[in-house]
Amino acid sequence: MADEKLVNELYAEICRIPLIDPHSHINPHRPTSRTLDDILGYHYYTELAHSAGMSKEPLSEKTSPRERVRAILTYMERFDNTVQYQWFVDIAQTFLGFQKERVEAADCDALYDAAEEKMAQKDWEDQVLRQSNIEKVFLTNDFDDPLEGFDTNRYVPCLRTDDLVFHLAKLDVRQRLSKATGIEVGDASALRKAVGKLFDHFRQHQARACAISLPPDFSPEKVSDSDLSAVLAKTSRGQDLSADEQRLCQNGTFWMLAEYCHELRMPFDLMIGVIRRVYEAGVFQGQDLFDQRTSLIQYRKLFNAFPNVAFCLSVLTTNQNQELGSFSWIFPNVMTSGHWWYANIPAYIELDARYRLQAVPKTKQIGYYSDMYKLEFGLPKYNMYRKILAKILAEDFVRGRGYSTEQAVELARLLLRDNARRLFQTDSQ
Amino acid sequence: MADEKLVNELYAEICRIPLIDPHSHINPHRPTSRTLDDILGYHYYTELAHSAGMSKEPLSEKTSPRERVRAILTYMERFDNTVQYQWFVDIAQTFLGFQKERVEAADCDALYDAAEEKMAQKDWEDQVLRQSNIEKVFLTNDFDDPLEGFDTNRYVPCLRTDDLVFHLAKLDVRQRLSKATGIEVGDASALRKAVGKLFDHFRQHQARACAISLPPDFSPEKVSDSDLSAVLAKTSRGQDLSADEQRLCQNGTFWMLAEYCHELRMPFDLMIGVIRRVYEAGVFQGQDLFDQRTSLIQYRKLFNAFPNVAFCLSVLTTNQNQELGSFSWIFPNVMTSGHWWYANIPAYIELDARYRLQAVPKTKQIGYYSDMYKLEFGLPKYNMYRKILAKILAEDFVRGRGYSTEQAVELARLLLRDNARRLFQTDSQ
Amino acid sequence: MADEKLVNELYAEICRIPLIDPHSHINPHRPTSRTLDDILGYHYYTELAHSAGMSKEPLSEKTSPRERVRAILTYMERFDNTVQYQWFVDIAQTFLGFQKERVEAADCDALYDAAEEKMAQKDWEDQVLRQSNIEKVFLTNDFDDPLEGFDTNRYVPCLRTDDLVFHLAKLDVRQRLSKATGIEVGDASALRKAVGKLFDHFRQHQARACAISLPPDFSPEKVSDSDLSAVLAKTSRGQDLSADEQRLCQNGTFWMLAEYCHELRMPFDLMIGVIRRVYEAGVFQGQDLFDQRTSLIQYRKLFNAFPNVAFCLSVLTTNQNQELGSFSWIFPNVMTSGHWWYANIPAYIELDARYRLQAVPKTKQIGYYSDMYKLEFGLPKYNMYRKILAKILAEDFVRGRGYSTEQAVELARLLLRDNARRLFQTDSQ
Repeated sequence: MADEKLVNELYAEICRIPLIDPHSHINPHRPTSRTLDDILGYHYYTELAHSAGMSKEPLSEKTSPRERVRAILTYMERFDNTVQYQWFVDIAQTFLGFQKERVEAADCDALYDAAEEKMAQKDWEDQVLRQSNIEKVFLTNDFDDPLEGFDTNRYVPCLRTDDLVFHLAKLDVRQRLSKATGIEVGDASALRKAVGKLFDHFRQHQARACAISLPPDFSPEKVSDSDLSAVLAKTSRGQDLSADEQRLCQNGTFWMLAEYCHELRMPFDLMIGVIRRVYEAGVFQGQDLFDQRTSLIQYRKLFNAFPNVAFCLSVLTTNQNQELGSFSWIFPNVMTSGHWWYANIPAYIELDARYRLQAVPKTKQIGYYSDMYKLEFGLPKYNMYRKILAKILAEDFVRGRGYSTEQAVELARLLLRDNARRLFQTDSQ
Repeated sequence: MADEKLVNELYAEICRIPLIDPHSHINPHRPTSRTLDDILGYHYYTELAHSAGMSKEPLSEKTSPRERVRAILTYMERFDNTVQYQWFVDIAQTFLGFQKERVEAADCDALYDAAEEKMAQKDWEDQVLRQSNIEKVFLTNDFDDPLEGFDTNRYVPCLRTDDLVFHLAKLDVRQRLSKATGIEVGDASALRKAVGKLFDHFRQHQARACAISLPPDFSPEKVSDSDLSAVLAKTSRGQDLSADEQRLCQNGTFWMLAEYCHELRMPFDLMIGVIRRVYEAGVFQGQDLFDQRTSLIQYRKLFNAFPNVAFCLSVLTTNQNQELGSFSWIFPNVMTSGHWWYANIPAYIELDARYRLQAVPKTKQIGYYSDMYKLEFGLPKYNMYRKILAKILAEDFVRGRGYSTEQAVELARLLLRDNARRLFQTDSQ
Repeated sequence: MADEKLVNELYAEICRIPLIDPHSHINPHRPTSRTLDDILGYHYYTELAHSAGMSKEPLSEKTSPRERVRAILTYMERFDNTVQYQWFVDIAQTFLGFQKERVEAADCDALYDAAEEKMAQKDWEDQVLRQSNIEKVFLTNDFDDPLEGFDTNRYVPCLRTDDLVFHLAKLDVRQRLSKATGIEVGDASALRKAVGKLFDHFRQHQARACAISLPPDFSPEKVSDSDLSAVLAKTSRGQDLSADEQRLCQNGTFWMLAEYCHELRMPFDLMIGVIRRVYEAGVFQGQDLFDQRTSLIQYRKLFNAFPNVAFCLSVLTTNQNQELGSFSWIFPNVMTSGHWWYANIPAYIELDARYRLQAVPKTKQIGYYSDMYKLEFGLPKYNMYRKILAKILAEDFVRGRGYSTEQAVELARLLLRDNARRLFQTDSQ
């Protein structure tokens, strides 16, 4: 029941908070788009176009970037109701000088040309960050990333560990690990040394978090070194692992990561709930889905075992949001983090954020992250969140509780900036 | 935050869209009610009256229709808060000349008489359809329905397959199948032929969909012909099936239906989540409930195996709505369909529809269906949905995104008419 | 879209309904707080302060009450966004003469002194009840509570049975039971007699309900007397029970309670979903959480077996609210009850209450209970609920359906007073 004027006023003020974006997939060597194809190549567009009827043919290398854009724009009118479409309009209007309300296939060439010109400007990266009001962006780095050649003050490294936990049995991963650390991981002790080297390397390059995405049936357990060694020895010999052995290897490696997070006071981002490759014939990055039947109770041992590790949790479904909020309300070491992927849609963001704001200490909430691959997406995604946040603050806090506008904006500042700075110690470099 | 005037304006425009109702239980030989007892005999009223304290006695054949109506009306004040009560008031006001805001037991005779008179009018069916602005209504036909004696242009046949999948082991069902097709289904090949005959028959009578309702633990798998044959042979000999064999029989038959849907380009409506006969002593059709712990991940093999079948999915809980929306956003062959039964309540319709409108291509959404048994219920049920839709369009699309009223109504037209026409090819008769 | 004036008007009217509070943890011998420490000792504050960074040290007996309050108030600014903080402000303003909008650590002494003075007033209990407009408060009594020395007309006894069902294998509990009843429970028949004595005792002292909280995996089953006897004999001999035997003992005892509820026409409050001691190092009463994966289908046998027992159900998650509403809509003996613990947060109360009001007979809904340990919390908790209820009534019933203010308030009166009076027969003493 908040009036539009108040919401708009709060939104404008919130937009002035310089953002710390604690999770993205930005390539720091090439953070911005170079063509409109980089924008519309984002899996949200390719998968929605495909879902709406486009074959995968325009996505092959045979198709030129401009024609690929044309193909996607042609199908876009079938999903112009979605919030992802709205992100694109926001990008076109803010960054590409687009003047209309709706993008159509006929706009392809004009937009493509405008993008090419704009994105070729020398200071494009700075322009985008400035207009988006983004100060720092966290990365998602492979464990063997050299982490060199970029400003780690702006692009904060983050050790992504999916490969270590879920694919250590693969020859390729073990070879990459061996190459990165000089250690063959034939047993638990060697793995511990190797992982320690990775953490050292990342810490030396100002990494501020360890991160992983996890399937809905993951349920971490401590594993004995001898059990883990037996399984690692088997993989070293190139033998296949049974399902139980795979799970043991995953648990052992995961628990080791938590131990290092404890030792090095490194927050551990857990992104919970994704099942990979559900739609086998889907487009690149457009194949993953989930099973709503999962629970944070699966993590009770972990949360109890590592009271000094800040676990920053993202969940993939609005169904799990009450667990997220409630576990964070009870466990000092559990933080709520952002609105992820299939739950990153206004209808659910609003409900989920509202519960968190009403039930979780405000200092324990990471309001949002972009999850973006190209810097241009920070602005529309954060805008979407900021609008919802402004609405909640207006209704529940200004109208509902007598907050002043300033007090409401202070609350927003924690969610968008200060909590991330404190939790990830981004100022202590 | 949309103002009432805009919502009302949108609602009025949306009401002008001629409806294609893609799922009902209408008996085309007797589509309308003849008495008020036909209206209040709808299980929503009998089960709510019973839940609120009415014994089942007035529902027996011994009670006259008028007295049965009186009994239900007497208990109705205990549930006059519900949306189902509101449907009834809408019917009374629109079709029966009822002038008051609330119906009471004292209105019994006047309403009963008014109904009897109105419903006896020769053109009652046409009146109802015209006032409801319904153009076509899909049926739910038993597999052995002769499909004759009605206008399949108005009443579109739909092959309902619950009996085939879940009750094929019953002698009665096998006899009906044999009688309808002339085939004894002693093995997989015979079953395939028999089912093929059913599809032929339905196609010849302009059937436009195959449909089934499924329990929450159903998880379709391909079954080999030899395995299926073994089980069918057993049932032919009158032997009982083990739980595993029953499941195998269900899976084998279900998969066969999907194969025919593929071959004949027939959409397959899956209505997921109901458990039958939970409340054993409940009223007719008022015994079924559900278990929220179910997931669309159980259908991953099916969706991957039949990329060319349009699966129109209904789910029974708002909990599963995110899965529905997300699977539809990723799988080209998954469509969202309506708001079903226990989720067909405004609080959840609003949240669920909002997510779909924000995340699923607009061309893939069947907005609503009536699920009605008598034509008079189309109007109040669609009105409920149209009001919510008007509110969402006003808030999220006109206010939130700058849509014109016309653009918002175009979106509604897809949900209420055009998507159903295209998906079910209702114009290609 | 209801305007603020209407909501405020409804709220004011709703506040005039004298409350029957059907579930609390009030100690009738000491119902009110004596110091501010009694207020801030409520687990919501200790657990939120701890979650936000406070060690457990200030909670030890070594710390004086005043210093404990100071410690919690110091951390309170970290969770001043929560609704629990808002309850505290409401208490401070209403009962302690606090004039400001926000409480800070600097207010500690003034508030502490004010509380000490106010709470020492002879008629403090009456003052609090009068200002809160609470007429009756249900208790949560241990099975061996003597139930003497208090006014059972104001404080209605309720037989809490967690110990009997879940801890009967513990020597301590068996000794308490033996002492309370004079019976050693070596077999099913003895247990039945003992439990019968408890019920007699409670009925003699005007108890109006039997209650229990249940873990999410609980799934009640009837147990034969001989099976139950075998297990009880084992516990009598001091032998440990296997997991299966424990479950059998729980089921057998639980089923027996339901039988007595049937026999004595006593409602049975089931509070479903809590897992105890998840956060092992948490503060007192701040360790319990849940697993969202649970279903009311687990209770189907129970609901079918006892059609004449009024089961008043609370669920711990908003996810289970649709089940709660739907089961109550179908089963005559299932009532919806309040908004419990982790679901007792406005964002979810609003959605959950809305569904119930739209789908469940109004006579079957217990709108709210306080769950409080000290009387001062009745007012802010009920205020929270009443505000949400006023909003829903304004939007859905007055605006949406043309209810008059009076009609809307009548609906509220059922939820807040009349349904509890009728179901628990509180007037028939």
